[in-house]
Amino acid sequence: MPELRKDPITGRWVIISSERGKRPNEFPDQRNKKRTGFCPFCAGNERTTPHEILAYRDAGTAVDGPGWRLRTVPNKFPALQIEGDLNKQGEGIFDKMSGIGAHEVIIESPDHEATLSTLPARAMEEMLWAYRDRMEDLKRDRRFQYTLIFKNEGINAGATLEHTHSQLIALPIVPIQVQEEIDGCKRHYELKERCIFCDIVRQEVQTATRVVIETPLFVALAPYAPRFPFETWIMPKRHLSCYSCSTNDDFRDLAALLQNVLRRIDRALSNPPYNYVIHTSPFRDERNEYYHWHIELMPKLTNVAGFEWGSGFYINPTPPEDAAKFLREIKL
Amino acid sequence: MPELRKDPITGRWVIISSERGKRPNEFPDQRNKKRTGFCPFCAGNERTTPHEILAYRDAGTAVDGPGWRLRTVPNKFPALQIEGDLNKQGEGIFDKMSGIGAHEVIIESPDHEATLSTLPARAMEEMLWAYRDRMEDLKRDRRFQYTLIFKNEGINAGATLEHTHSQLIALPIVPIQVQEEIDGCKRHYELKERCIFCDIVRQEVQTATRVVIETPLFVALAPYAPRFPFETWIMPKRHLSCYSCSTNDDFRDLAALLQNVLRRIDRALSNPPYNYVIHTSPFRDERNEYYHWHIELMPKLTNVAGFEWGSGFYINPTPPEDAAKFLREIKL
Repeated sequence: MPELRKDPITGRWVIISSERGKRPNEFPDQRNKKRTGFCPFCAGNERTTPHEILAYRDAGTAVDGPGWRLRTVPNKFPALQIEGDLNKQGEGIFDKMSGIGAHEVIIESPDHEATLSTLPARAMEEMLWAYRDRMEDLKRDRRFQYTLIFKNEGINAGATLEHTHSQLIALPIVPIQVQEEIDGCKRHYELKERCIFCDIVRQEVQTATRVVIETPLFVALAPYAPRFPFETWIMPKRHLSCYSCSTNDDFRDLAALLQNVLRRIDRALSNPPYNYVIHTSPFRDERNEYYHWHIELMPKLTNVAGFEWGSGFYINPTPPEDAAKFLREIKL
Repeated sequence: MPELRKDPITGRWVIISSERGKRPNEFPDQRNKKRTGFCPFCAGNERTTPHEILAYRDAGTAVDGPGWRLRTVPNKFPALQIEGDLNKQGEGIFDKMSGIGAHEVIIESPDHEATLSTLPARAMEEMLWAYRDRMEDLKRDRRFQYTLIFKNEGINAGATLEHTHSQLIALPIVPIQVQEEIDGCKRHYELKERCIFCDIVRQEVQTATRVVIETPLFVALAPYAPRFPFETWIMPKRHLSCYSCSTNDDFRDLAALLQNVLRRIDRALSNPPYNYVIHTSPFRDERNEYYHWHIELMPKLTNVAGFEWGSGFYINPTPPEDAAKFLREIKL
């Protein structure tokens, strides 16, 4: 019997319909990193990207030259433009503003064949620090309300370059799904005086059926009402409303946990394409009692039928309890 | 300069970023209907599907045999199960119910190579009638709140069989995107005492820059803040809150307009994969002043980066004014 489950944060219902499911090992390897032609993100090719904004470099190496471990540059084909005023205006009954924003690329390794699963532990930590450093810098620009950080790994997940990288878009608005989560969290807080994510962490750690792994500070779990097979959320166990409120201890712990989860997913599902996105509180109200920052990780395993775009209605063939158990039992 | 535009119904912002765009004729033909092996939807193979629920047949032909023009059958691999009670319950802080619902397939032609662009006018009309007939029938089942009707055309749009068909899912809940539209419409109605779709129709027909075509009763337009290139909405010009409130005149007019739009899209974009979905009022409040039924048609032209799933944040390379003009000027 399929099951309808409600996401407690957004109110979104999904169908868990395991009769239609594939076994994890039925997914073919969809990602491979054979160098094909010129790569602008490789060490030695620094001059082919826009000038670097932030880099973690070995001592004595020069800006826009080799010797970096992590490098952040503007996206060469940005979706938004950094210079200009927002120029908010109406157009009859409609509303618009100029497409002002930052669009940056965070190259997590100079090595073309690296993946997050294989990076040194320190490089994972540095990636998390770079996310924070860029968020903190962009927060000072009063035109922006939000920084969306995400990673597309693999062509089928939307990556246009195979060299490992994350992206950041600083926005003058809050993305609607984040806003809807915030609205849901505020409703819960008004009713209960508690953060709903904190409630979820408590219940999930106790029942343990949907937990993939936990560390002292973080937990990775299959959400109760996942839209996609093997969708995994990673969140701090204690209440933390914003990503950049996290401490160095948090980032060290998270680096290990995130890499562990990605290794499990790569092992379990034959290096699937995946996306992850960081949901955090908007700049204007970064420290609050109701919202809890987290990572949503979505392996791209099924060719999602496009009607989901028009309905927000998801059919997921893999119960989260099965996905979590499968990932938990992977031998690394 | 890219532009940020707000969808007035849901409040969703999108980036219109035409610098990144492709010209329409850069999209390759992604759909072709060469018969490959056995097709259960073809005339003569009726015994290989579940028993028909509704068929429009020539006089004197037998149920589950040939002689039909349109045929509706249960989906052989349903996402939901028709028999049983909803059995609503909690699971700690979570909510669930049994996956009860109907999942049906509407086969719009016995001809394997037909597409909606090439069907006879009468067959298009019959498809629209079949949608209504099934909705009206399923409405009598008190377990259901909504019937979601959608079409996936082409493998890249999620179709698993290439023979032309639509699908219907009757649900004990209202899909979240429909609910969010309804909430947005109610807010507008409370402020203005008017339906926001009626306001949009008035402004769009007057400015005409985003209109693809109009008929006496319907209009096809590129929405102000489209998520996808060539996204097109089709709606009745007068206020009509529910699909099945439409009259026979409406369906005749709509059949011609929908086919005209699909022909333009097929011609303009080399037979692209597409999805459409019907948004209508839920059963419980079908006739109302605030919501306006419509079709959302989404050609699948770009490989949408998966992070949109996690943010609700869309980057669209094709301004709707350009898309509408291009479709308007197609010679049929």
